[in-house]
Amino acid sequence: MALDLREVQGQIVRQQSALTLRDIQAVSPALATYTQNSISDDLWKRLGLSARDRSIVTLSALIARIQTIGMLPYFNIALDSDVKASELSEIVTHPAFYSGWSNALSAVPSLKAIFAQCGIGADQLPGVSLQLLPLDEAAEAQRAAAVEQNFGAVARGVVQYTTDLLFRDLLLRPALAPRDRSLVTVSALIASGQVAHITYHLNRATDNGLTQAQASEVLTHLAFYAGWPNVFSAPPVATDVFRERPK
Amino acid sequence: MALDLREVQGQIVRQQSALTLRDIQAVSPALATYTQNSISDDLWKRLGLSARDRSIVTLSALIARIQTIGMLPYFNIALDSDVKASELSEIVTHPAFYSGWSNALSAVPSLKAIFAQCGIGADQLPGVSLQLLPLDEAAEAQRAAAVEQNFGAVARGVVQYTTDLLFRDLLLRPALAPRDRSLVTVSALIASGQVAHITYHLNRATDNGLTQAQASEVLTHLAFYAGWPNVFSAPPVATDVFRERPK
Amino acid sequence: MALDLREVQGQIVRQQSALTLRDIQAVSPALATYTQNSISDDLWKRLGLSARDRSIVTLSALIARIQTIGMLPYFNIALDSDVKASELSEIVTHPAFYSGWSNALSAVPSLKAIFAQCGIGADQLPGVSLQLLPLDEAAEAQRAAAVEQNFGAVARGVVQYTTDLLFRDLLLRPALAPRDRSLVTVSALIASGQVAHITYHLNRATDNGLTQAQASEVLTHLAFYAGWPNVFSAPPVATDVFRERPK
Repeated sequence: MALDLREVQGQIVRQQSALTLRDIQAVSPALATYTQNSISDDLWKRLGLSARDRSIVTLSALIARIQTIGMLPYFNIALDSDVKASELSEIVTHPAFYSGWSNALSAVPSLKAIFAQCGIGADQLPGVSLQLLPLDEAAEAQRAAAVEQNFGAVARGVVQYTTDLLFRDLLLRPALAPRDRSLVTVSALIASGQVAHITYHLNRATDNGLTQAQASEVLTHLAFYAGWPNVFSAPPVATDVFRERPK
Repeated sequence: MALDLREVQGQIVRQQSALTLRDIQAVSPALATYTQNSISDDLWKRLGLSARDRSIVTLSALIARIQTIGMLPYFNIALDSDVKASELSEIVTHPAFYSGWSNALSAVPSLKAIFAQCGIGADQLPGVSLQLLPLDEAAEAQRAAAVEQNFGAVARGVVQYTTDLLFRDLLLRPALAPRDRSLVTVSALIASGQVAHITYHLNRATDNGLTQAQASEVLTHLAFYAGWPNVFSAPPVATDVFRERPK
Repeated sequence: MALDLREVQGQIVRQQSALTLRDIQAVSPALATYTQNSISDDLWKRLGLSARDRSIVTLSALIARIQTIGMLPYFNIALDSDVKASELSEIVTHPAFYSGWSNALSAVPSLKAIFAQCGIGADQLPGVSLQLLPLDEAAEAQRAAAVEQNFGAVARGVVQYTTDLLFRDLLLRPALAPRDRSLVTVSALIASGQVAHITYHLNRATDNGLTQAQASEVLTHLAFYAGWPNVFSAPPVATDVFRERPK
């Protein structure tokens, strides 16, 4: 049919960042009901993963996939679920390295708007130079040697930045606990189909305190937010990781 | 050069959801010509796949990749190509599970705008509780057992939701024919590079009535909408599926 | 907390296409500092890859991932780094085939705005019908035979379009040098995790004049723009390509 596309686009843009259940209903009563019954009233209330963890997993998946449409409400849910503003600041910074710089930047406008409304200023955010967490020099030397051997010949710059910016800086920033930081990384990898890198980071997450029961529930949670196919690719990897570790 | 970025962004946002051929021409006369000659006047008129099927494939690819820029015009084309409003409602709902919840939600504003302009109300949309299609209990028991064996130990919740929400609910909703539903799934998988999952769903699509000639033309269609690399990853898988089946 | 999401979304949309360092700072002082110190003052000034090449790599990654948020500033940086308007036109057209049609279209509004501000009109853009670069008939016959053998049976249409539109048209368009065109393709493949296709195109890029030192620096550059995981998937492939070639 003849349709003035330009006329309707204004209202579309206005709706993109704040969909209501009523908007969804106008298109699919079933999708609205699944959203309410399966996600809000069921998934988020399952035991095994706290609402706090679920909001970290959800935000990590949204940022990893640049799904700006859900960021505003989920930043809000995170604050209501005991994620501190300082932690949200790190949850947006961390994916710059693990998902891509634009992914991190895509979350800035939404979080800035939330911080402005809540009166959260620079004094409540983690600074640039912090007393970093202690480095396990032996483990780091081993990791650096492995990366050097695999990538040194073809990606000298990556190897150097990996040491300087990631393992001796970002990952030691204290404003997000190592376990929560690992939760962001693992969620982002699964949500963006980075199967090859899950083993290393799931092991690291387990070292940092993520339990197998929680990891399992992360998969369940991500089925909804990253789609079944991404999640169905992860269990073989997770099985291998879990098999070789004590419960 | 010095450029006031803030000044020009308004017009960019206004253009994002309704590009015209003239907009494309202002940037690349070649791209505008390819769009007109190779896609509109050639690809869409190829035999082997109806305009109706092509609009389903296109929308599935756009939703799987959150490419909101094309949704408005292609929802319109779908309605003009005998896709019913009730089917569009399901075509947006289905990817919530196969691409991710935000993917489905990203399509809501565009489809809502189209429905409003066309006067399509709740009475024309599939309800929440429907008389579901009959379930093949034997095949479902076999599938559930396979998934339980592969994923049960590490993703208990996923296994349960897969049975309850997908195979005993979504996939039996009658408002989209099983063959068309499979077309949505297969298109989404190819368009988002989910190579590992194509075999199962292409087999299922063939069971549901998608012919090999149609599947081949789906690949051709997706080359343009999902890019050559995603499509070049699919033929080895498709070859295996086709080889083991009668024509 | 109770938050009027509709109220704040206007300002979010306005910020999406033109983030400033101050916007980033309001959310994460660390991210703003990384952006300034690690990217602007360090990465872009590394030897081994010119600012011109870096802007081509960056834009290719943004388009391959539909990251509209950075397009406006980086089109501007490209023009300032000796990328010609006619080359930018091709850099937007090329990904239509290698990333997907909507990916190319997503870049149109930003580039159109830049061209309008700079007074760049149709006379400065590459035309539709150009004197194409000469075709290496022997190499093309070999390529076509290989693709025919691999995909001919299941994707007849793709095979035909690959020959007609890509190898006998797009890739011979003279407005972007073959080496730069390869740089766009390789950057897009790495940035979107298309590992399986890197070998062929990295070989082709090397044939077209991209040095191994430059390719290595492309990986370093993309670590920031496409995330560490995408870049960590590429070195094994690059190692194989480099090992079998003279330096």
